[in-house]
Amino acid sequence: MTVTPEQQAEIDALRAEAVPTLRVVAPGMESVLHTAFPVLDHGFIRVVDYMGDDAAVVQAARVSYGRGTRRVNEDRGLINYLMRHRHTTPFEMCEIKLHVKLPIFVARQWIRHRTANVNEYSARYSILDREFYVPAPDQVAAQSTSNRQGRDQVLPPDQAGQVLDMLRDDARRAYDNYRHMLNEADDGTPVDPARDGLARELARMNLTLNYYTQWYWKTDLHNLLHFLSLRADPHAQYEIRVYADAMMDVVHRWVPLVAAAFEEYRLGGAHLSRSALHVVRRMLAGEQLLREDSGMSAREWRELMDLLGREA
Amino acid sequence: MTVTPEQQAEIDALRAEAVPTLRVVAPGMESVLHTAFPVLDHGFIRVVDYMGDDAAVVQAARVSYGRGTRRVNEDRGLINYLMRHRHTTPFEMCEIKLHVKLPIFVARQWIRHRTANVNEYSARYSILDREFYVPAPDQVAAQSTSNRQGRDQVLPPDQAGQVLDMLRDDARRAYDNYRHMLNEADDGTPVDPARDGLARELARMNLTLNYYTQWYWKTDLHNLLHFLSLRADPHAQYEIRVYADAMMDVVHRWVPLVAAAFEEYRLGGAHLSRSALHVVRRMLAGEQLLREDSGMSAREWRELMDLLGREA
Amino acid sequence: MTVTPEQQAEIDALRAEAVPTLRVVAPGMESVLHTAFPVLDHGFIRVVDYMGDDAAVVQAARVSYGRGTRRVNEDRGLINYLMRHRHTTPFEMCEIKLHVKLPIFVARQWIRHRTANVNEYSARYSILDREFYVPAPDQVAAQSTSNRQGRDQVLPPDQAGQVLDMLRDDARRAYDNYRHMLNEADDGTPVDPARDGLARELARMNLTLNYYTQWYWKTDLHNLLHFLSLRADPHAQYEIRVYADAMMDVVHRWVPLVAAAFEEYRLGGAHLSRSALHVVRRMLAGEQLLREDSGMSAREWRELMDLLGREA
Amino acid sequence: MTVTPEQQAEIDALRAEAVPTLRVVAPGMESVLHTAFPVLDHGFIRVVDYMGDDAAVVQAARVSYGRGTRRVNEDRGLINYLMRHRHTTPFEMCEIKLHVKLPIFVARQWIRHRTANVNEYSARYSILDREFYVPAPDQVAAQSTSNRQGRDQVLPPDQAGQVLDMLRDDARRAYDNYRHMLNEADDGTPVDPARDGLARELARMNLTLNYYTQWYWKTDLHNLLHFLSLRADPHAQYEIRVYADAMMDVVHRWVPLVAAAFEEYRLGGAHLSRSALHVVRRMLAGEQLLREDSGMSAREWRELMDLLGREA
Repeated sequence: MTVTPEQQAEIDALRAEAVPTLRVVAPGMESVLHTAFPVLDHGFIRVVDYMGDDAAVVQAARVSYGRGTRRVNEDRGLINYLMRHRHTTPFEMCEIKLHVKLPIFVARQWIRHRTANVNEYSARYSILDREFYVPAPDQVAAQSTSNRQGRDQVLPPDQAGQVLDMLRDDARRAYDNYRHMLNEADDGTPVDPARDGLARELARMNLTLNYYTQWYWKTDLHNLLHFLSLRADPHAQYEIRVYADAMMDVVHRWVPLVAAAFEEYRLGGAHLSRSALHVVRRMLAGEQLLREDSGMSAREWRELMDLLGREA
Repeated sequence: MTVTPEQQAEIDALRAEAVPTLRVVAPGMESVLHTAFPVLDHGFIRVVDYMGDDAAVVQAARVSYGRGTRRVNEDRGLINYLMRHRHTTPFEMCEIKLHVKLPIFVARQWIRHRTANVNEYSARYSILDREFYVPAPDQVAAQSTSNRQGRDQVLPPDQAGQVLDMLRDDARRAYDNYRHMLNEADDGTPVDPARDGLARELARMNLTLNYYTQWYWKTDLHNLLHFLSLRADPHAQYEIRVYADAMMDVVHRWVPLVAAAFEEYRLGGAHLSRSALHVVRRMLAGEQLLREDSGMSAREWRELMDLLGREA
Repeated sequence: MTVTPEQQAEIDALRAEAVPTLRVVAPGMESVLHTAFPVLDHGFIRVVDYMGDDAAVVQAARVSYGRGTRRVNEDRGLINYLMRHRHTTPFEMCEIKLHVKLPIFVARQWIRHRTANVNEYSARYSILDREFYVPAPDQVAAQSTSNRQGRDQVLPPDQAGQVLDMLRDDARRAYDNYRHMLNEADDGTPVDPARDGLARELARMNLTLNYYTQWYWKTDLHNLLHFLSLRADPHAQYEIRVYADAMMDVVHRWVPLVAAAFEEYRLGGAHLSRSALHVVRRMLAGEQLLREDSGMSAREWRELMDLLGREA
Repeated sequence: MTVTPEQQAEIDALRAEAVPTLRVVAPGMESVLHTAFPVLDHGFIRVVDYMGDDAAVVQAARVSYGRGTRRVNEDRGLINYLMRHRHTTPFEMCEIKLHVKLPIFVARQWIRHRTANVNEYSARYSILDREFYVPAPDQVAAQSTSNRQGRDQVLPPDQAGQVLDMLRDDARRAYDNYRHMLNEADDGTPVDPARDGLARELARMNLTLNYYTQWYWKTDLHNLLHFLSLRADPHAQYEIRVYADAMMDVVHRWVPLVAAAFEEYRLGGAHLSRSALHVVRRMLAGEQLLREDSGMSAREWRELMDLLGREA
């Protein structure tokens, strides 16, 4: 189960009644506010609050440019300009707060993005739910041989089945023993009055890394886009990429001009090295260039040819 | 002039029409949103946007405490608990965006607070206005002899008058020459068609440090309170303290429970050193204690006696 | 095993030969550089590099004070002054880099300190060792009833034994299955050539939270002290506190004057709230004060009386 | 004067005697440690301390890759790989501390890089020296008409001369009046015993923005490179770019492999937008492409053609 009935009731209540505000409102964001978007088998993201919209980016940029910009630019043009020239501070003027439910091993990658505010469910304080991630069968993939930190083709069904059984069994046993050590029923009373319950801060160490945790995560738009540029990338692990994809959808609703500029100037583009730039110039000048003359490694050459849509 | 007629018209327009939102609204904050509060002779602060309220702090804290807190705590009690035990992350879940107009020498102190987002008016790009800070006569004070970085008694009227004249004359001449070097009228045309205008990024170096600049400044509530604990302090320079005081008023309107907890547990309290704590214990036990037996320096002893309301 | 023979050989080699430098050297730190200090059953901390010493703090503070301080202060006095008045930036001028081996659930607390640089062993890329944390029997404690996030008295031996068996069994099974899914021998060849190995980034999710990980962690002295003020505290979980204690020993060797000032003005002291300060003043004035007249809650009153060495 | 005789004597003393250390030593850095490199008319940068070298980056990266990398990579290849794929955390494992003397208007740009530690000379506490920046005649340039925040051709000698006279006169008068208001001789006694001296924190506001200040500035290698990518760029203002250029020289001495990778993969390369990438692909496929068909603005098209070494 992704969202508990209690959570859904709370969401419904939050969405039931709008109140007036003098703040900037982003209509696309209001339409999804509080709603939980499912990710993986039990996870979700939901926007809890936000500040600003496309116009807030423009407004902040124009503070910088002051009276000089009276005549100026249409918003889209200015946002594109800012994105293209990596003038990042105006994008920091929008803020988003998400409620995220995610497996612990994903949370461990996610938390490496330091410029954010986080309040995580505390397993020192409370008892975790019996919810753990198990990959869908089409995600049970072999270790990549070409990329030491990636995955490759999907395992044959029998092998995948064995893996899934193993993950499930170990997770369930870990949880059962966690609760046994806690010796505490859902209502807080001891299950076995003859035993003490182990401290929660200790018992939690028995859980496996695919257990779900939850947190509130708040960051500004610039840092969110940086997160997405790394985690919505094909090199990112699938299990975090699906969260990034869901967040990218939110960004499109929230700040459509920024989202389009981000895809044009960041996500959809590519960085060429000095050598690669020379290669492109020489090829455009009609030169028949060989890898050996490029100063590039075989791997870089191959990646460049891929990028340029040519055979290596 | 603190706010230009154009700015006032913009503020009036922004305050004219409320729109519905599903977000949390802080009524006290809505009542002052966009309004400019004057500070010093030409400066101001105005809240441009905000996210969250007292309840948002509580909500974030309860994510951490999860099912453990079902029965729970009244909000005020939880906020006091968080403040008292320096559980700071829930306070990071509220955000504020201010528009501030302030002298450059104040901006230089302010910017040392790094955990914030800033967009400043760019004098590379635009022309600064002819507005500079001159202290009120009752702020024209002598160098403190006891505190190398403070001020002392007010100067006699004739000396103060001379200082003010000097500050005004130098600031005006600096500005006149700045505009002369720029050679640009307000409408952008050259004043003297026979001369080139000096680049703005160069001409600005002729201005004095009391010229006003402006910025958008965005930070979270935890970092705002940290700013206030340092800058609303009697040791802070008067010219930044008045900004801190104005922001403290805003905090009271925005998050009244947090503001009260902050005054009770931070601003109004005091940190005792290990030695000071021993002294207090011994005094409470009835001991007649001399400074010499305390292990404290004369200065620390005097400060402690002050704090305890006793003669040193 | 805490340190592998390979690691010990590397440490010995690193300690074998000193080279000349024009940088500041902290003799106490040199004496322990590279050495692994055991923590918990398989963990350690070791200093890999450092920058600065007590004098570097003083030097940075004096940049700020410039020509004004020519006559000046003895180093100890200045360091005490900086610590007492929370002038934190000079302490940021020293830096330390540690190699730490620690259980994952401890790493999850540790990483919440954001102002640090981290490179962690990647289980997407490499295979984790079969090393997990199991508490010593005298640490197998019951859930505290007074403090929802703490532990209380030690469990009776038979119950503790059952807990330890459970933790060990589950950790071992999780690891065996992890390696089974990976299907990779230590030399990188498949164990069972008829099967594919599951991608490492997936298989790792089967491990329990007490498995050890490793990282390089680098931070400045100010942020290190902030870490210690939170984690060397009795309210911190034992399993992170022992790391903090080991780091506190390192700080004493590295910057003895700073360490002493930190214990006098931070660790060993206490913060009084506004109400607590009023209570102390009135008690010192001879008033017989009751809790009811103090404006403090029962819990705060009890804590204050504890602090003052009096009965509640 | 860039360096005072006292400073030079201190530098000579610091360079006179090497002491043994067990830390990593970067020989190229040792050769310039403490030495002041002049920048602008009175400024300088000097390295005060450092931590790490090229090998420290590799070492940190290999922690991440653990046992997987036993066989592995030559250092240069790994550093190139990290730079190319923006694996930034290993570069954070090196640290540098600089002493910088710079004009206040440059300091105001510099301080916007927030991930650094700073101790600045305090004009609340001490008296600033009579040193201000005046551009060399070949830097006295007109406002750019194409770029609102840049400069263009150099002014004719007579106009430049007038500008320089004006800058010098205003700076001198500002300083004279600053000292008059302070009423304090270099030895601390009053110049005119009949007058009080104005508080330093106030008097400083009379100085112009080209006065020199000083600070200690400490940052990690990743953030230093980010600073350089923005400030060693042709779009950066000349007066900060010369500092960045001097720092780039230091980086070459300190971490030559990282410096080379940075120039190959960052400084010397270029980012193509999605549209630009399509254009390049189509041109390489032999298509005669017009700007109108590219989806790019005239400005972007011109910049792309420049980059590719073709006529627009």
